[in-house]
Amino acid sequence: MPSSDESDSSVDTREAIMEATFRALSKHGYSDLRMRDIGEELDMSRTLIHYHYDGKHDLISAFLEYIVDKYEGNVEVTEETDPWSELDRRIDQCLFGTELDDEFGHWERMRVYHDLFSQAQHNELYQEILSEHYERLRESIIQVLERGIEEEVFHKVDAEEMSQLITDIIHVARERRISLGQESAPKQARSAIDDYILSSLVKPEFVISSIKQSSNDGN
Amino acid sequence: MPSSDESDSSVDTREAIMEATFRALSKHGYSDLRMRDIGEELDMSRTLIHYHYDGKHDLISAFLEYIVDKYEGNVEVTEETDPWSELDRRIDQCLFGTELDDEFGHWERMRVYHDLFSQAQHNELYQEILSEHYERLRESIIQVLERGIEEEVFHKVDAEEMSQLITDIIHVARERRISLGQESAPKQARSAIDDYILSSLVKPEFVISSIKQSSNDGN
Repeated sequence: MPSSDESDSSVDTREAIMEATFRALSKHGYSDLRMRDIGEELDMSRTLIHYHYDGKHDLISAFLEYIVDKYEGNVEVTEETDPWSELDRRIDQCLFGTELDDEFGHWERMRVYHDLFSQAQHNELYQEILSEHYERLRESIIQVLERGIEEEVFHKVDAEEMSQLITDIIHVARERRISLGQESAPKQARSAIDDYILSSLVKPEFVISSIKQSSNDGN
Repeated sequence: MPSSDESDSSVDTREAIMEATFRALSKHGYSDLRMRDIGEELDMSRTLIHYHYDGKHDLISAFLEYIVDKYEGNVEVTEETDPWSELDRRIDQCLFGTELDDEFGHWERMRVYHDLFSQAQHNELYQEILSEHYERLRESIIQVLERGIEEEVFHKVDAEEMSQLITDIIHVARERRISLGQESAPKQARSAIDDYILSSLVKPEFVISSIKQSSNDGN
């Protein structure tokens, strides 16, 4: 039964418009998107779009906030999760995604996200939203790096530089998969991150003791 | 004096159309680009565009080939250039650019290039041209890495994996500068490449002898 509370129904309407925008963007891409394509995906009066949003840029800005929210916040970590596991989970979630309980898959969300990312050079508001989001991802990596360094699990590194690099490699791997159709890009990126970046987090004494261990084992 | 040779003048016309496309794309961005915007930038009859190109996608595909050609092929290296210098020059050229003898600057070219890159997910022909270009950049890095390994200047690494990673970091640094307006991204990328990636090329005996050298120097 639909709620008669106006603010509730307004939230529902906005959610329906966001979902319609998602479907329309997936189908047409940003460049070819017209307001009426969104209207065609909407199961209610199209005038509601114009009532809630002031044109294409306003609607797409709201949509960006919406998709960025969906993208984040679902890495399951607690204070008990050790830094290595947390770092792994964060990287894997960004690279391989988690399926949410909605009609859209991870790569469908990423496809739309990367399509809008490229528009940031033409639109200051999109740029602001996307810059903040990029920064939040980077911050979440900085935090786990700093925690691991503090807990003496990780070797001391420049957490700012390393987290920027990890965030960048994740971004470009998704883009290669989406724009160039290179399906294996996220897997390649994961190996490269392990080989070239996370290897610096291993404490030197751990490396030395593993070498000793393996020579004691007669290997 | 304009050439009366038809093929020459046809080459000139195509060049003029490419330059007009460049100006129109810089001004409007791909999403808002209409054929008539290109016509407005052209100092000759607009019907020539339709005579030479079969619609927007055909014109933009030709333009992609044109801009990708301009982007490449101007790293000055000879067989005498040592592998470290060649690698440095190739990375720096991609990150910081070289100014060509035309009206457009490096970042103006990159801005248009990255704008079109994001369209590859919607257009197979663009995807093909951009995939080939990405692969050529990667190949040029593989070649210098393999040469350095062969000449025993570089420590042995997986040249395929390392060159993919370098190409990726260059790409995303340009994109952060262009899409998010982060001016320092190319410089950050250069340090990160040095710290995390090229450091693996330094031969272990060289590291050991530098450490010995500095302790002999009393440091």
